[in-house]
Amino acid sequence: MDAEILAFGDELTSGQRLDTNSQWLSQRLAELGIRVLFHTTAADDLAASVTAIRQALARADVIISTGGLGPTADDLTRQALADAAGRGLYRDEEALAQIRRMFARRQRPMPERNAFQAMFPEGSRPLPNPHGTAPGIELELARAGRPAALFFALPGVPAEMREIWEQSVAPALRRLAADRPRVIRHRQINCFGVGESDLEQMLPDLIRRGRHPTVGITVHQATITLRVTAEGASEAECRAAIEPTVATIRSCLGDLVFGEEDEQLQDAVARRLDERRQRLATAEGGTCGLLALWMAGVGSGGAYAGGVVLPRLNPSGGVLGIPRELAERHGPVSSELATALAQQVRQRYRATYGLAVTPFPPEPYEVEQGAAAQCFVALDGPGVTTARPFSLAGHPAIVRERSAKQALNLLRLYLRQTD
Amino acid sequence: MDAEILAFGDELTSGQRLDTNSQWLSQRLAELGIRVLFHTTAADDLAASVTAIRQALARADVIISTGGLGPTADDLTRQALADAAGRGLYRDEEALAQIRRMFARRQRPMPERNAFQAMFPEGSRPLPNPHGTAPGIELELARAGRPAALFFALPGVPAEMREIWEQSVAPALRRLAADRPRVIRHRQINCFGVGESDLEQMLPDLIRRGRHPTVGITVHQATITLRVTAEGASEAECRAAIEPTVATIRSCLGDLVFGEEDEQLQDAVARRLDERRQRLATAEGGTCGLLALWMAGVGSGGAYAGGVVLPRLNPSGGVLGIPRELAERHGPVSSELATALAQQVRQRYRATYGLAVTPFPPEPYEVEQGAAAQCFVALDGPGVTTARPFSLAGHPAIVRERSAKQALNLLRLYLRQTD
Repeated sequence: MDAEILAFGDELTSGQRLDTNSQWLSQRLAELGIRVLFHTTAADDLAASVTAIRQALARADVIISTGGLGPTADDLTRQALADAAGRGLYRDEEALAQIRRMFARRQRPMPERNAFQAMFPEGSRPLPNPHGTAPGIELELARAGRPAALFFALPGVPAEMREIWEQSVAPALRRLAADRPRVIRHRQINCFGVGESDLEQMLPDLIRRGRHPTVGITVHQATITLRVTAEGASEAECRAAIEPTVATIRSCLGDLVFGEEDEQLQDAVARRLDERRQRLATAEGGTCGLLALWMAGVGSGGAYAGGVVLPRLNPSGGVLGIPRELAERHGPVSSELATALAQQVRQRYRATYGLAVTPFPPEPYEVEQGAAAQCFVALDGPGVTTARPFSLAGHPAIVRERSAKQALNLLRLYLRQTD
Repeated sequence: MDAEILAFGDELTSGQRLDTNSQWLSQRLAELGIRVLFHTTAADDLAASVTAIRQALARADVIISTGGLGPTADDLTRQALADAAGRGLYRDEEALAQIRRMFARRQRPMPERNAFQAMFPEGSRPLPNPHGTAPGIELELARAGRPAALFFALPGVPAEMREIWEQSVAPALRRLAADRPRVIRHRQINCFGVGESDLEQMLPDLIRRGRHPTVGITVHQATITLRVTAEGASEAECRAAIEPTVATIRSCLGDLVFGEEDEQLQDAVARRLDERRQRLATAEGGTCGLLALWMAGVGSGGAYAGGVVLPRLNPSGGVLGIPRELAERHGPVSSELATALAQQVRQRYRATYGLAVTPFPPEPYEVEQGAAAQCFVALDGPGVTTARPFSLAGHPAIVRERSAKQALNLLRLYLRQTD
């Protein structure tokens, strides 16, 4: 069973927007053991859309499209699908009622144009979209001498696309795949605290072609992900193949591993804080609220007490009441300031831990001669008061993310050490 | 003249890597006035690669491929291109000598496998790759009754692809385009404060097929972008065609338009604050630091004084010293609390404006019967103290972004009104 992914939109073919939906869908299809042979992106042009759909129907068994289901005149997917299948369009009254309810909940009248989103190719069925006005479309198309092809049209808004995938598409494909047991399984190990090639050298020749299970390595904003992939006749067979490789990786990397699958550093930290019924408060200079944003959205939410953001180089003013002399004597980018910020924010929010990142010195962070600029990260808690410098070298676009991760990692390692 | 972009690689079709090359190439082609109708991505499979090349040759005048030119067994582009064109492969001695020199400079012996990178389809010519071992390929293919199609095969490593593009492909395409001077120009108008179809209904039939310049509409996290695209013989001609449409859009939409091109709401707000030498402080409940993160990173940076994050439903505690009675009397999700937060944070940070978002009530934000849950946004400044409720309906993944934008928009409209 082969799949093809179609993405519709001028904003994609003109390069104005990067297509991330096709990657996400490919990953989900791989998890179901379905191989993707082609991605096709077509402009908002009826002829081009019909061509893309026809050629996908000729060579793939499962086709997933994204985009072109909106209410405006350049949304052509429903018409193109009807044309490619040689069908007319019908209006689905239940889908229309659902769209009307969506507007009613938002206390807005439904624009007439949105009624078009309740039109579907004959023989297809709507896939409910709980959070948007564009229902998806499922259409089964008979083919001569072969099993029918299955077409799923999803909206281009990533959150809506993902929700319809989870609720409607994945269950349908799982039922199909159940008859044809060949599965692909992945396991992800997430690491922080070392560079990519240093980490690779700690592993005994795991990352090479032809090995089974395969091990891939990718880096995203200083988090390194190892991906172990096995293919087999069953889930259990894949799991059994993956397990020893994961054990080897964990024993080689020790403390560098902080989680598996989608778990990020903030998830790992929030999980431990939740288990220990402890709370964290943050004082942020150069990271500008990134720690707050990450921590407030994870775990029970109860592990994050709140925080302050002080982007300026003079952090003495105002809200945390750091004595002016302290900032003047040591400078804002100092271990003394970092420690004072961590202590103060911990007290003010009555939290178990205070975590602070100083402001960053003025750019450029990386200098031609000598060492790169630094920031300081401090942790204050019961039995611990520590500050550490971290280099701001590296790509400027990820300095903020990496510094926030350095701070979380300081707390993570402390929690681990005191378990 | 239409173009198609091909990307080869299992790492793309399996979702292990995000394809950014196709976007980059689309942007470069648009700059040259060449429209892209399709992107096609094919797995490392000879039949799939040949299919992709053949269908591109049938429908595009210029084809740019990336990937599959490496030395390993899964690099199939040179073979697929030869097969699709019905040609054999020849060895280019100068290209081979160049690959040997590359290894000599790195003081490493050349693996035998790399000699394959000096093989080219008959009738094609190598495109020099100054920093890698994979030369590109240029092949002109005659077509019955039409001008010849031009195929450029480039490596998948982004830096090498871009260098060969600049050195070889762009000059060749510029020579072609010189005979047929045709450029494409875009202009983006960014709007906030209304739904997509309501906004479309405010425009007099601009978004329809066949109109020139074309107007496209996309939504990203409640920001609506209108894209005006003109084609013409020169940059000046395109500009002249675009200008009246932009003027019409601006006069129909008025205050809803906050910026052009890449400008986001926070950029527009920071620009005005910088011009007025004013500063903003923020108190965030449900938005959890998103306002801080956005505002600290834009403009001179001086327009953002700092902020506090109070994710909990009881925001009285600690740092801002809101009287407990106030929270108890009105509840944390109230206009009174929002106003008190805006006033306090403005004072504490000695800022011109205080902007506050209350905590969000517990999920679900959207209810089946009756109105959706709300949060309150308040603005405090010289001569203004105002609070407004905003609905939390819509996808939970963008509730935070939309609420932060509602807050910025409140300030933006106030700044505009007092200009």
